[in-house]
Amino acid sequence: MNNGRFITIEGGEGAGKTTLIQALAHTLTASGHRVMTTREPGGIPIAEQIRSIILDRSNTMMDARTEALLYAAARRQHLTEKVSPALEQGYIVICDRFIDSSLAYQGHARGLGIEEIRSINRFAIGTMMPDLTIYMDITPEQGLERIRQGAGREVNRLDLEGLSFHRRVREGYLLLRDQEPERIIPINAHQEPDKVLQAALSVIHERFGWI
Amino acid sequence: MNNGRFITIEGGEGAGKTTLIQALAHTLTASGHRVMTTREPGGIPIAEQIRSIILDRSNTMMDARTEALLYAAARRQHLTEKVSPALEQGYIVICDRFIDSSLAYQGHARGLGIEEIRSINRFAIGTMMPDLTIYMDITPEQGLERIRQGAGREVNRLDLEGLSFHRRVREGYLLLRDQEPERIIPINAHQEPDKVLQAALSVIHERFGWI
Repeated sequence: MNNGRFITIEGGEGAGKTTLIQALAHTLTASGHRVMTTREPGGIPIAEQIRSIILDRSNTMMDARTEALLYAAARRQHLTEKVSPALEQGYIVICDRFIDSSLAYQGHARGLGIEEIRSINRFAIGTMMPDLTIYMDITPEQGLERIRQGAGREVNRLDLEGLSFHRRVREGYLLLRDQEPERIIPINAHQEPDKVLQAALSVIHERFGWI
Repeated sequence: MNNGRFITIEGGEGAGKTTLIQALAHTLTASGHRVMTTREPGGIPIAEQIRSIILDRSNTMMDARTEALLYAAARRQHLTEKVSPALEQGYIVICDRFIDSSLAYQGHARGLGIEEIRSINRFAIGTMMPDLTIYMDITPEQGLERIRQGAGREVNRLDLEGLSFHRRVREGYLLLRDQEPERIIPINAHQEPDKVLQAALSVIHERFGWI
């Protein structure tokens, strides 16, 4: 394999993305692949600075479109400084959330419009779309229940949104899957971690011919 | 007059925007109008934070598209927090640079593409286009000569770009004028300040019927 592969993992809160990404990296590395896992802002100073503006609690006046543009800016910088160079060096890059999170959360659930958010993200990422996106599908009720039971991370701002918001997020993801069924492959995330891993490995094998 | 008017002043380095804006504000205020002058980021904390990332000299890795998205984000916030409320209150808002600067500098002169930059800026500003844009036309040679002779401000990073860059900026502005001849009105900026003011007042009178 001369060229890298760009795999993104998407899903709602409590879907188990972090657990799956760690397991995938472990399995693929053990099979001899060079794997880099990352998530925005990925330790890129410019992207971290942008992120800190978004997360600054004193920025209560932040407009939703300002926020969407800042996410796209951070994505651009993370992509050019970290993801693209790794892909050029032949790594399998597994990224926790990417463009589809903006489309599902901001475009659909927040109501800014999927096509509008797609447009600014296309400006940000150009032709660098993922080779494969695994969508970890779970109902909001199941996902939020996992977080309440302490699934390894703290409750964040998005977890506290109402159930209807998380339903719109899932609806958004399913719309995206319908738009790009070749790229976005859903797996049932409401299973034991080992079964989720097997499902993801099977998708990867089917797409690229390797594990 | 119940509704505000949104006037933007555009031009290359050394065109004399600051001088004209002060004179316009003075004249219009003396005629009984309520005038607000501003420039991005305009003292809006979120926009100031964004601007500080753009100007941070240690951010040498800043990608041109990241920068364009950050400018659009700062513009959005300045517009929603400061410009739009003033317009709703009936002010004449005179803004030093706006969307056309991004189109001329980043879209045309930096080569990112006018239509691409227009697209992310349309996302940022929606339908809030200026009612009138006065383009202060001057050759780069004349404008840069003014700055060298100490036209009231310090030499900045853009002044130090080569002459060919500033020629492309002017070319960009003239392209935009051709695209939107109703909105963008050029005036000859290579005159004495008082003649420039008279030219601008005459454009404003013709457009809005008042001084």
